[in-house]
Amino acid sequence: MTITRATSGVYAIAPTPFDEQGRVDLVSIDRMVDFYAQAGVNGLTVLGQLGEAPKLEASESAAVAERFISRARFPVVVGVSAPGYAAMRTLASHAMDAGAAGVMIAPPNTLRTDEQIVQYYDGCVDAIGAETPFVIQDYPLTFTVQMTPSVIARIAGAHPSCVMLKHEDWPGLEKITTLRAMEAAGTAPRLSILCGNGGLFLDFELERGADGAMTGYCFPELLVDLVELMGKGRRDEAHDLFDAHLPLVRYEQQPGAGLAVRKYVMTRRGIIAHDAQRTPARALSAAARAEVDYLLARLATRDERARLG
Amino acid sequence: MTITRATSGVYAIAPTPFDEQGRVDLVSIDRMVDFYAQAGVNGLTVLGQLGEAPKLEASESAAVAERFISRARFPVVVGVSAPGYAAMRTLASHAMDAGAAGVMIAPPNTLRTDEQIVQYYDGCVDAIGAETPFVIQDYPLTFTVQMTPSVIARIAGAHPSCVMLKHEDWPGLEKITTLRAMEAAGTAPRLSILCGNGGLFLDFELERGADGAMTGYCFPELLVDLVELMGKGRRDEAHDLFDAHLPLVRYEQQPGAGLAVRKYVMTRRGIIAHDAQRTPARALSAAARAEVDYLLARLATRDERARLG
Amino acid sequence: MTITRATSGVYAIAPTPFDEQGRVDLVSIDRMVDFYAQAGVNGLTVLGQLGEAPKLEASESAAVAERFISRARFPVVVGVSAPGYAAMRTLASHAMDAGAAGVMIAPPNTLRTDEQIVQYYDGCVDAIGAETPFVIQDYPLTFTVQMTPSVIARIAGAHPSCVMLKHEDWPGLEKITTLRAMEAAGTAPRLSILCGNGGLFLDFELERGADGAMTGYCFPELLVDLVELMGKGRRDEAHDLFDAHLPLVRYEQQPGAGLAVRKYVMTRRGIIAHDAQRTPARALSAAARAEVDYLLARLATRDERARLG
Amino acid sequence: MTITRATSGVYAIAPTPFDEQGRVDLVSIDRMVDFYAQAGVNGLTVLGQLGEAPKLEASESAAVAERFISRARFPVVVGVSAPGYAAMRTLASHAMDAGAAGVMIAPPNTLRTDEQIVQYYDGCVDAIGAETPFVIQDYPLTFTVQMTPSVIARIAGAHPSCVMLKHEDWPGLEKITTLRAMEAAGTAPRLSILCGNGGLFLDFELERGADGAMTGYCFPELLVDLVELMGKGRRDEAHDLFDAHLPLVRYEQQPGAGLAVRKYVMTRRGIIAHDAQRTPARALSAAARAEVDYLLARLATRDERARLG
Repeated sequence: MTITRATSGVYAIAPTPFDEQGRVDLVSIDRMVDFYAQAGVNGLTVLGQLGEAPKLEASESAAVAERFISRARFPVVVGVSAPGYAAMRTLASHAMDAGAAGVMIAPPNTLRTDEQIVQYYDGCVDAIGAETPFVIQDYPLTFTVQMTPSVIARIAGAHPSCVMLKHEDWPGLEKITTLRAMEAAGTAPRLSILCGNGGLFLDFELERGADGAMTGYCFPELLVDLVELMGKGRRDEAHDLFDAHLPLVRYEQQPGAGLAVRKYVMTRRGIIAHDAQRTPARALSAAARAEVDYLLARLATRDERARLG
Repeated sequence: MTITRATSGVYAIAPTPFDEQGRVDLVSIDRMVDFYAQAGVNGLTVLGQLGEAPKLEASESAAVAERFISRARFPVVVGVSAPGYAAMRTLASHAMDAGAAGVMIAPPNTLRTDEQIVQYYDGCVDAIGAETPFVIQDYPLTFTVQMTPSVIARIAGAHPSCVMLKHEDWPGLEKITTLRAMEAAGTAPRLSILCGNGGLFLDFELERGADGAMTGYCFPELLVDLVELMGKGRRDEAHDLFDAHLPLVRYEQQPGAGLAVRKYVMTRRGIIAHDAQRTPARALSAAARAEVDYLLARLATRDERARLG
Repeated sequence: MTITRATSGVYAIAPTPFDEQGRVDLVSIDRMVDFYAQAGVNGLTVLGQLGEAPKLEASESAAVAERFISRARFPVVVGVSAPGYAAMRTLASHAMDAGAAGVMIAPPNTLRTDEQIVQYYDGCVDAIGAETPFVIQDYPLTFTVQMTPSVIARIAGAHPSCVMLKHEDWPGLEKITTLRAMEAAGTAPRLSILCGNGGLFLDFELERGADGAMTGYCFPELLVDLVELMGKGRRDEAHDLFDAHLPLVRYEQQPGAGLAVRKYVMTRRGIIAHDAQRTPARALSAAARAEVDYLLARLATRDERARLG
Repeated sequence: MTITRATSGVYAIAPTPFDEQGRVDLVSIDRMVDFYAQAGVNGLTVLGQLGEAPKLEASESAAVAERFISRARFPVVVGVSAPGYAAMRTLASHAMDAGAAGVMIAPPNTLRTDEQIVQYYDGCVDAIGAETPFVIQDYPLTFTVQMTPSVIARIAGAHPSCVMLKHEDWPGLEKITTLRAMEAAGTAPRLSILCGNGGLFLDFELERGADGAMTGYCFPELLVDLVELMGKGRRDEAHDLFDAHLPLVRYEQQPGAGLAVRKYVMTRRGIIAHDAQRTPARALSAAARAEVDYLLARLATRDERARLG
């Protein structure tokens, strides 16, 4: 049950739940896994940027990964981005031993040239082992690293274990088109492309050739439905549903502030017990909570799953 | 007819039209001004980032500013951002002599500390003169300069000619709330706050205390209606209209690619003669044009102004 | 034996020695400590950027810190910079329990505004405890974070445990002068200022009011002599000695490449067993080794401690 | 008299002299040209970053370039870096018509990927014309753009008019070696490589294969002598002379502050009438002036050209 270059569907990005004292809330992890299963996702990705991974200690990261994996009956990808290869190696090894489906690696924000990026991922493969499937996280907005299609092709060409692109460049539609054209022309290996960026362009990303979504929107059901409707060619319906969610999708996709929205809604939905984040955290003001509630109420008129207690 | 700290409403950001040889298209400028007048905007801002200002020569910038000003019967703000104070001084002086309502200044992307930002704007006031009203453009996504509310307050406190904030921080809702609270507490002067960022959060920005919009969405009528509806307290209607436009607003707000969308739609609407940009430009692919057409067709079912020929 | 705001002298930045398999070489740590003692330093700083700290696992960092501390008969400062507060808390606590003299914290390279920097260090004090003396590492060249004197004063004013500035801004002479003037005027608390940046400006930094050096030049004897000569008012002699070393100081201060030079010379001097670095590392080419050898031979004509076997 | 891929020697970077009112001081330009001629330089480069080019208006830049060119009996390279291609085209055309030997272009600090850099220079050649010889300025410390040897080779391979690299990467010695190896292997065209970065590594850069210097050290005589001594194989003498100047070279190479040092010394030497800079400028404090004077006095004991009135 590992990810491959043919993986498709929805991999939800799971937050890391904390209790009010800031401790990892393992019980909420179980509840989240059950919720995601019911929502119909194909897999989970944990310990990403929005999983507050950098705020965990090494031992906590291992424990979180294990808990998700042991509860889930579907593939779990584990984020192993780290300031150095030694810590990456240990967490990746631990996660794969525990049954992870693969690992995800974001580039450190000091990389600039094409060569630096390629060499960085060469080093990653040395660290995690050539048999460990991995996901490139391509998120320049957050990481400030810009990877061209040709750089992605070079990494994937050199490493069969590079199986997936978490695509969240912005703008990014042409990048998907270019990558698929390179694959068709034989100048890039076929990669699974799952889209992040909060789902803000998922309506068109799927039409451009993406295989699905890997993002953390607080209604993963929307992502699942969208992939399904698009797969069945029911384009207008897909857009109708997407457009109904877009005001909230957009609100949740605010850099830094988005995680607070996501945890707030997930708490309101009963998926996690607390919306606590570890420091440094951006809390949701009363005004912002009211705005989210208003958006939920408006959404509920078009998607009743948004009708919360 | 200059901007003040009480200015409100919609100031459309106007693109600079070029013909197919890349020359400034003065006739289209006239047509744009007439269109904006009909759309009900309160003013225009020209020679901003999306006006391709850095791609113009000094003499062209002066000519463009003049043409807009001479045609318009409403206030025109002129972007005078420049790599050095000498060029800024000359353009500002020229624009004000021609009848501009004020100037707009974005910070150079090398500024980091609070002091550097404050000192930079001190230098701007020396350059443009203390009697020239100016707008601070606060757009960290593009300029990478982060201005806190207290920095904005320091600049405005030191310079009565600092009358307006073009607010396009992201996330930015709390920033508006904080600035308005500082004004209420007497720790910041009252500024006019007009919102940019493509209008992506204008629905809530107005509720947070913004005075209007200064952005370039290809349907400025939406901005005008939104401000009006919100002003009348017709909140749900305002959101309904906003939500209808949001899929296109979002599409147009893609960094770099957005201007091509804007010019494409404005050309389709007959407002400018060509959607040409000067190099470096990101062209709209056939796939992207089809996506925009699809969004327009969907929008037309809810706002018939989007029904294009 | 903890650092205070009155600490002065030379704190050598110690590299982390590895063997040829990339394992931490504990025996070389002992040898280094003995060497530094003989060289007359006042203290050591370990696990800094040039100590390859980000390349170590949490357990290795703890072991390295312990080994240095247990061998040394002088104060040892431990770098605890980490991507999150949880890891920082654990390492700081471990190090202080083991007898560290204090900890050093560099700002993450995502900080921009004054407030972000101040708040970050507030969070650090929460993490390491108000009783743990700490050093601010002010190294914009590497970390891209620019701290003004007033920001440093705000941090030190809020936290009595902020006792020292590792000053390595560039240019930085006026910054020392400004900080000392603020102290004299009562607008900043008195801080110990030890200078880094490879010692490239140590000749004048001492004259501007610095209390000594905290850097890793491969001849710490030069740093010790310089501080002593300057302390005795023997300015010309101090500069003569400094100038003799400057060609090598400059060569070693090349970003990224410098650590290879340092480890190479320390290996040639018999201080560490191997010049191995962990990946990613920049190796010394044959041409570079020949250049260093040439610089050493030239230096030996003026300082015979540079006459290597 | 244009630069070619075989150009060698010393091209001094000339500052732009201003009078005390901030006006361009044309008379000092003449005096500077005469001084540089006497110092034995092979050419001049004007309107670079340290020539305060961004602080000039378009008409001033043209006038400055013309004045230098009309006075000089040796090649003059004109910096034409600009925020857009239109301004670049006009200045380049004007300079070449006036008799410039070529133009120099620095990359805008927003470029990141290899492709962006290559495309940017493609656009430059479109703007300045394929017949205008140009210099790539590779100065990541200031411009934050990192160009690998292969990117430089791609640009030069595509454009025969790319004749020279102003090499000021840091560290940069291996880059020269790599480029020369690529030339030998036939994977890069032969370029003239002149070194900048204040001359801080010129001693070894020449040995690595550079063709000379293009930098603005206040004693260009040192650069001329160094190139000559190295050319004659008098290595130890060359290093002796270089080492004598290194304390001042290092002092002048402080980012931002260096220009003030340079203009101060050039004023003391009688080469320009005033050390005025345009805003924003970093002035030399009394302490800094005293430090420079001290360095000059020390230098004068080893190079009597430093004995100033």
